[in-house]
This record gives sequence, structure tokens and C-alpha cells, in this order.
Amino acid sequence: MTMWPADIEDHARSLVETFSDRGLRVATAESCTGGLIAAALTEIAGSSAVVDRGFVTYSNAAKTTLLKVSDATLALHGAVSEETAIEMVRGALAASDAEVAISVTGIAGPGGGSPEKPVGLVHLAALRSDGHLRHREMRYGDIGRHDIRLATVRTALEMLTELGEA
Amino acid sequence: MTMWPADIEDHARSLVETFSDRGLRVATAESCTGGLIAAALTEIAGSSAVVDRGFVTYSNAAKTTLLKVSDATLALHGAVSEETAIEMVRGALAASDAEVAISVTGIAGPGGGSPEKPVGLVHLAALRSDGHLRHREMRYGDIGRHDIRLATVRTALEMLTELGEA
Repeated sequence: MTMWPADIEDHARSLVETFSDRGLRVATAESCTGGLIAAALTEIAGSSAVVDRGFVTYSNAAKTTLLKVSDATLALHGAVSEETAIEMVRGALAASDAEVAISVTGIAGPGGGSPEKPVGLVHLAALRSDGHLRHREMRYGDIGRHDIRLATVRTALEMLTELGEA
Repeated sequence: MTMWPADIEDHARSLVETFSDRGLRVATAESCTGGLIAAALTEIAGSSAVVDRGFVTYSNAAKTTLLKVSDATLALHGAVSEETAIEMVRGALAASDAEVAISVTGIAGPGGGSPEKPVGLVHLAALRSDGHLRHREMRYGDIGRHDIRLATVRTALEMLTELGEA
């Protein structure tokens, strides 16, 4: 028994097994989840064969210096945007030895929401080293900070699995 | 209600409040906890004022490229050592805008243990920008992967709090 919801732990275990079998490593770039995706993956014994590294880029400065997100993108589209998520995932893959990367940026609340970008809005991007790129915009609603973060972990694991199996 | 043990969530909340009041920001460098310390801190609303960035350096390559841990240190002392923990925390502070950094490297198991470095051995280091440095060697015992990681989060929060309040 761990503290993790059983579905997340099961999914993380299955992902680690699949990626390990295929020799795929993962890099994570997390804003609103703040390390939770990497933590879910590394909960699994044997994940050291799969998890290469992770970036928790909570501040904008962290996004620009570690992941090379451009100031122009942040100014024009905001930290919570498709454009930022895609620059984050490109930066994470480039700054790692991984074959697959995932990025998330969103508004976990309770503050920080606006009519256009409400609490629960999360952009995720996944990128494979062959250039295969996916983006999802999720609107989980104002279901609470913890549940928004967990929902984001679930979507991130789904996107990683899709790219790993495609 | 979140999935977190109540004592960890309470400690993280109190740390975020104290550090926020004092204008202190945190950087994390995590090996065996794999993002769990950053995830515990960012669970707290308002943590964006405190959490600058985090590094999940699961592979040795991540430790050397992101945190400038030297190959010689890894070869001579191993990834799970006081020396590596201290180089990790120095690297994390240098590669961040934070005033306080924490690093952890250990053997969460179930594999990877040896008589000299058994499962449950974790080295932690905390560093403040004024040079104040602390190191702890913990031997939690073979209490299971999940509980070793949670115990490490508890020790890390204690060390951060000590440096933040000292």
C-alpha cells in the first residue's frame, strides 16, 4: 500500500515495464504538477532504467534557463499555453538523454484563474526523439488543487504511454 | 483531503509560509525521491512564491550535466554518498535563483543494496546561499520503497526548515 491512487500506480508500473522493454527513457518538465509525474514514475521499482531526469520549472526563470522557453513566448502567450508547453517539452528532450519527454503547465489554483484561463486549465505536450509531437488542452474544472494535479498526472501518463506504444 | 500523509502536508504548509514570509526560495535536487520533495512543497497553495525549481537527477548523467557532480566523485564515492549529496546541493543552488537548496541521494530498494550501502541508506545535504551547509546520513532500514521515500521527504523538510529558520 502506498499513498498513490491505485490507478495511477498501476499505470505508472505498466508504463515503466513497457518503456523498459523497449529501451525508452523519459524526461519530465513540470510546472503545475511540481514533480508529481516524476514522483509517480519513480515510485515503481526498476524505474531507474526508464526515468532519465526531470525538471520542475515552477518559476518563469526556470522555464527560460533550464528549458529554453523564450521570453517572447511567455510574454505573448503566457506560461499556461500550448506554445509554452511545446517549448518546454522540446527543451526537456534536448537537455536530456531521453527518447520521450512530457511537459505540463497549468493553473492548479485556488488562485491565478481568469475567465479566459480558468483554474483547472492545463496544457500538456509529449515529444518523441523522432519528432512525433502531441499536445492536449485539458479543462478539468475547479475540482481542487490536489485533484487537478492528480488528473494532470493521469493525462501525462496516458500521453507518454501513447507515444511509447505508437 | 489529499493523498499525502497529514504530517508531511502540515510541514510543507508551515515551511511554505515561513519561507514566503522571509522571502526565501527553494531549489531541490532529488535522486531516490524522484520529485517527491518538490511535489510535497508544490501541493501547497502559494508555493509558487517559494519553489523556484527542482531537478530530478535519477541517472548519473543527469547528476553530472545538470548539477555538475564530478565523474571522479561518482567513481570514487558512488552516487549514494555524502560527497555526491554535497556536490548535488551546490550544483542545484548554483543553477537556480533560490536561497536554500536541498539534495537527496539514496537506495530506496528493493534492489541495489549492499552490506556497506544497504537499502534505506540516504544522504541529504542542505545549503544556504550564505554558505551554511548541513549533511545527514540516514539509515531508515529496509522499510519498503514507499516508506523510505516518505521518510526522506520528512528529513528533507526538517533540514530545509532548520536552514530557513536559523
